[in-house]
Amino acid sequence: MEFQNLDRIAAFNELKALKPASLKEILTPSRIASSWVEAGASLRYNWAAMPVGEEHLAVLQGLSDEASLIEKYRLLLSGAVMNTGEKRQVLHHLARAAEGDPVIVDGEDKRAFYAGELAKIKAFSEQVRNGTVLGSTGKRFTTVVQIGIGGSDLGPRALYLALKGWAAHAHLVTLDAHFISNVDPDDGAQILSCLNLEQTLFVLVSKSGTTLETLTNQAFVSEAMREAGLDPSRHIVAVTSKSSPLAASDEVLDAFFIDDYIGGRYSSTSAVGGVILSLAFGYETFGLLLDGAHQADRQALNPSIGENAALLDALIGVYLRNVLRLPSTAILPYSQALSRFSAHLQQLDMESNGKSVNRDGEAIDYPTGPVIFGEPGTNGQHSFYQLLHQGTDIVPLQFIGFLHSQYERDVTVQGSTSQEKLNANLVAQIVAFARGKEDENANKKFAGERPSSLLYSERLTPEVLGALLAHYENKVMFQGFLWNINSFDQEGVQLGKVLATSVLKGSEEDPTLKAWAEIFAL
Amino acid sequence: MEFQNLDRIAAFNELKALKPASLKEILTPSRIASSWVEAGASLRYNWAAMPVGEEHLAVLQGLSDEASLIEKYRLLLSGAVMNTGEKRQVLHHLARAAEGDPVIVDGEDKRAFYAGELAKIKAFSEQVRNGTVLGSTGKRFTTVVQIGIGGSDLGPRALYLALKGWAAHAHLVTLDAHFISNVDPDDGAQILSCLNLEQTLFVLVSKSGTTLETLTNQAFVSEAMREAGLDPSRHIVAVTSKSSPLAASDEVLDAFFIDDYIGGRYSSTSAVGGVILSLAFGYETFGLLLDGAHQADRQALNPSIGENAALLDALIGVYLRNVLRLPSTAILPYSQALSRFSAHLQQLDMESNGKSVNRDGEAIDYPTGPVIFGEPGTNGQHSFYQLLHQGTDIVPLQFIGFLHSQYERDVTVQGSTSQEKLNANLVAQIVAFARGKEDENANKKFAGERPSSLLYSERLTPEVLGALLAHYENKVMFQGFLWNINSFDQEGVQLGKVLATSVLKGSEEDPTLKAWAEIFAL
Repeated sequence: MEFQNLDRIAAFNELKALKPASLKEILTPSRIASSWVEAGASLRYNWAAMPVGEEHLAVLQGLSDEASLIEKYRLLLSGAVMNTGEKRQVLHHLARAAEGDPVIVDGEDKRAFYAGELAKIKAFSEQVRNGTVLGSTGKRFTTVVQIGIGGSDLGPRALYLALKGWAAHAHLVTLDAHFISNVDPDDGAQILSCLNLEQTLFVLVSKSGTTLETLTNQAFVSEAMREAGLDPSRHIVAVTSKSSPLAASDEVLDAFFIDDYIGGRYSSTSAVGGVILSLAFGYETFGLLLDGAHQADRQALNPSIGENAALLDALIGVYLRNVLRLPSTAILPYSQALSRFSAHLQQLDMESNGKSVNRDGEAIDYPTGPVIFGEPGTNGQHSFYQLLHQGTDIVPLQFIGFLHSQYERDVTVQGSTSQEKLNANLVAQIVAFARGKEDENANKKFAGERPSSLLYSERLTPEVLGALLAHYENKVMFQGFLWNINSFDQEGVQLGKVLATSVLKGSEEDPTLKAWAEIFAL
Repeated sequence: MEFQNLDRIAAFNELKALKPASLKEILTPSRIASSWVEAGASLRYNWAAMPVGEEHLAVLQGLSDEASLIEKYRLLLSGAVMNTGEKRQVLHHLARAAEGDPVIVDGEDKRAFYAGELAKIKAFSEQVRNGTVLGSTGKRFTTVVQIGIGGSDLGPRALYLALKGWAAHAHLVTLDAHFISNVDPDDGAQILSCLNLEQTLFVLVSKSGTTLETLTNQAFVSEAMREAGLDPSRHIVAVTSKSSPLAASDEVLDAFFIDDYIGGRYSSTSAVGGVILSLAFGYETFGLLLDGAHQADRQALNPSIGENAALLDALIGVYLRNVLRLPSTAILPYSQALSRFSAHLQQLDMESNGKSVNRDGEAIDYPTGPVIFGEPGTNGQHSFYQLLHQGTDIVPLQFIGFLHSQYERDVTVQGSTSQEKLNANLVAQIVAFARGKEDENANKKFAGERPSSLLYSERLTPEVLGALLAHYENKVMFQGFLWNINSFDQEGVQLGKVLATSVLKGSEEDPTLKAWAEIFAL
C-alpha cells in the first residue's frame, strides 16, 4: 500500500480548487434531512452546516479512495506495524472486539489476551462490589480512586462523569470514583481530604510502572494509609504491563494487564478504563460501552463517506484545516455529563496529530492537527461564544446533542422543560453560526458562514458513549492517514521529561536551566 | 483623547518591521534575572522566554505611549463611558477600591455603593457562619450552592477551587460550595443528588433577574426543597441589580446588589463572587482577595512597561497576535488549585476581545482576541503538549507557578518532593519550548522558538489570587485599547438567545430552524 503526503494526492489538489459552499445559501430543510451519516450504535453525524456541497463530497470520496483510508484502517486492524516511530502494532480496536480471528503479536494472540483481562476485570469488580474482597480492616469498599495521568486519567474520568447520571437513573449500585493525576501534591491532598481510606480502593495505572507522577502519588496515598493504620497493599490494584515492576509487586492486591500496543490516549476501552468503570458501575455497564465502541469501529470500515461518519468527519476536517486553513476546532457537547469529554478529545487529537514529520520521519509542509478546546453548552454560550460568533477568526464547531437527559428529572418553566431549553439553544446556535444576521449597527451584525456539525443520539447511554469515543478515535486515525503522519507515538513529550530530570539533579551543566530552577529554589 | 485603530498607530508599523528575537540565542541566565516585572501583591511576570529584545521593548513602550494606554485606563477609572456600545461606565476596579474620591454615576457614588454591599456581605456571611441565620428547619447551613452561568459561574468557581487548599491549611471554617450553571437538567440533578437540602443555602446570581438558565435552575431546586418539606425562600439569597424582579422578591431571604457597570466576566470581585466566597471561607478571605486585586490595579497604572506587568503582557501579546499572527494562547498553571482558572480566562479574554468592529462600530481588518485554552501542568504535559512542542503551528504559552504548595502536605520520592517535581517540570518546559533539541531522527527533533512567559509568586494566597485575576482583567483591557475595540459588551451572544426563543415558540416562520428543532422533538 502506498503512503504519501497529503499534498501529493491528486484529489487533494482538486479539493484545494474548491471554494467553500455558502452556508447561508445551502442550509435548507431538505439538506438537513439528507445529511445524516451513521456513526454506529444509534449515534449519527449531520454535516448539513458544513461548507461542502455535492462537488466537495465527490472529491472527498475520491480523496478517501485515492489515499486508501479504509485499506489502511484494515491494515491496522490486521496487526500491521502502524506506529512506525516506535515500530509497534496499534491494537486498541481489539480491546473491544472479543470475537474474531486471532491477531498474533510477539507470539501471543492479542485478542485472547485482552479478552482474558476483561474476564479478570469482570471477576474482580464483582468481588469488590459484592463484598468478597474487603479493605484491610474488613470493611467494604465504597469508593475507588484512579491514580494515573494523561490517557490514564482524561479518558476514564470523562467516561465516568458521562455515565454517572445514566447509572443513577438506572438505579445501579455505584461506587464513588475520584481521580488523582497531577504531581502537584495539592491534587492528592485535596482528594485525600474527602476520602474514608478504610473503604477506598486505589487503581494505580501506569503502563511502564515507572511514570513518576503516578508512583509519587502512590507513595503519597500509601503514606496516608499507613498513618491511618491501613495496609496499602490491600487497598491498591495496578493496571500495568506484564513486564513492569508493578506487575509482580507485593505492594498491590492484584494487577490487570495492558501492553505497548495500546497508546495511553486510546486506552479507555482497555483495562485502563475498564477497571475503574467496572468497579464504579459494574462490569455490565463497561461491556455495553465496549459494544458501542465496537459498533462504531465496524461502521468506520464502510468505504462510502455517506455511510461512515468518522471517515466523512475526518475528510471535512482536512478541508477546513488544509484548504480553508482554520487552525482550531471547538467541541461543544450540549450535555453536562460530557463536561470533561472535550478535555479527553483535546489529548486524543492534539497528542495524536500534533506532528510535523511524516511517518517516514520527513518534514511536511502543510498544517496537521488543530488546537482542540471546548466546554459544555449552554455554559459556553455565556463565555467564549462571543469570539466564535463575532471574532476575527473562524473556528469550526462540533456540536454533540441528545434528545433526552440522563437523570430525567426536569422542571417546566415558561412552557418548556430544561431539556427542551437546552436543545433549543443547540439548534439555535447551529443556525446562528451558519446564517448570521444583518444589522445596521455593525456591533450587532453577525457575519455567519461559521461551520458546524452535529453528533446526535436519543440518549447518552454506555453504548452511545462507546460509539462517541470510538468515532473520535477513528476520525483522528483517518486524519493521521491523510496527513501521512504517525498518530500513535508522542516523541514531543520526551524533551521536557529529560530536562525535568536534569533540574532535579541540579542542572549544573546548564546555566539557563539552572537560572530558572533557582527561581523555584531547585 | 484619541482613539484610533491599531494599524494607524505609527509605533505599530515600526513593530511590524521587527523580526522576532531568537529564543535559542537570547535566553541566558542574565536575561532571566533581569526580565521580571511587578504585577502587584508579590505576583511577578517574567518575559525572558518571549521573542522580544531591547529594540522590541523600545517600540512597545512607544506603542503604549502613543496609544495612551495608561491615560485610557485612568479615563476608565474616572468613570468615563468606556463601554461605548451599551453607553455605560466600566466600574469593576471600584469594587475593590473602597478608599478614594466619589465616582458619581446616575447621581450615586458608586464607590460607596459597592462598599455598602461589601458591608452587607460581611454581616450576612458572618450570621450564616455563626449560626444566627438558619435554614427553614432550624439547622445550620453547611453547604452553599451558587446558581449562575457565565461570569456568575466561571470566575467564582475558579476562585473557590483556588482557595480551598489555602483555607484548609489555614484551618479556616469552610462551608462546602457547589455550582449549578447549565440549563441541562442533569447539572442540577447531579448536584442535588449530593446535597443535604436542609443545610444548604443557594446563592442565585443574575444581574437582570431574567437569565433563563438561572431562573430555571432556581425553579428546579425550589421544587426539590418543597418536596423535602423546606421553605425555599429561607434557603435562597439573590445577587442581582436593584431594579430586577429578584431584588424585592419574597422568594429570597436577602438580596445583594450589583449594577450594569460591572460586566459578568469582570464581576468576581463584586457581590457575584463576594457572597459565595465569603460564605465559604469567611469575609476576611474575600477581603484579602480584594486587596490583592486592588494592588494589581494600582500597579497597572505605571506607564513604564518595565514596572507594569499587565501592560507589558498585553503589548507582547499584540506582537504575537498581530505581527507574528499566532491565533491562540495556552494558559498553563502549575497548580491544581487553578484547575478551572483557564476556563475563567477563556471567558474573560474571548468574550471581551473576540470582536470584529472597533469602538465606533466600524469593521477592522486585523486580528483581535485569540483562542484561549489550557489545563494545569503537569497534566497537560501528558496530553496536548505534544502539539505545542512538535505541531505545525506555534502556540504562545503563559505559565503560572508558585514556590510552595497550598496544603503543604508532600512526599519525598527519588530524592525530591512532589512540589519540587512539579516546578522542575515547569522550568524544564520553558527551556524545552524555547530551545528545542536537534536530533538525527526528525521524529525526535524539537524546533524550539516557542515563546512562553511566567507569572510567579511564592504561594497562592487570596492576595496573590486577587492580583492574578486583576492582572488578566487589566491585560485584556489594555489589549482592547490597542485593538480599539469595546471589551465590555457582548453583542455576539444575542442572536443565539433570540433564535432559541423562536425555537421554543415553534419557529413556524423559519423552516430551517424548524427542521433542526424537529430532530430534538421541539
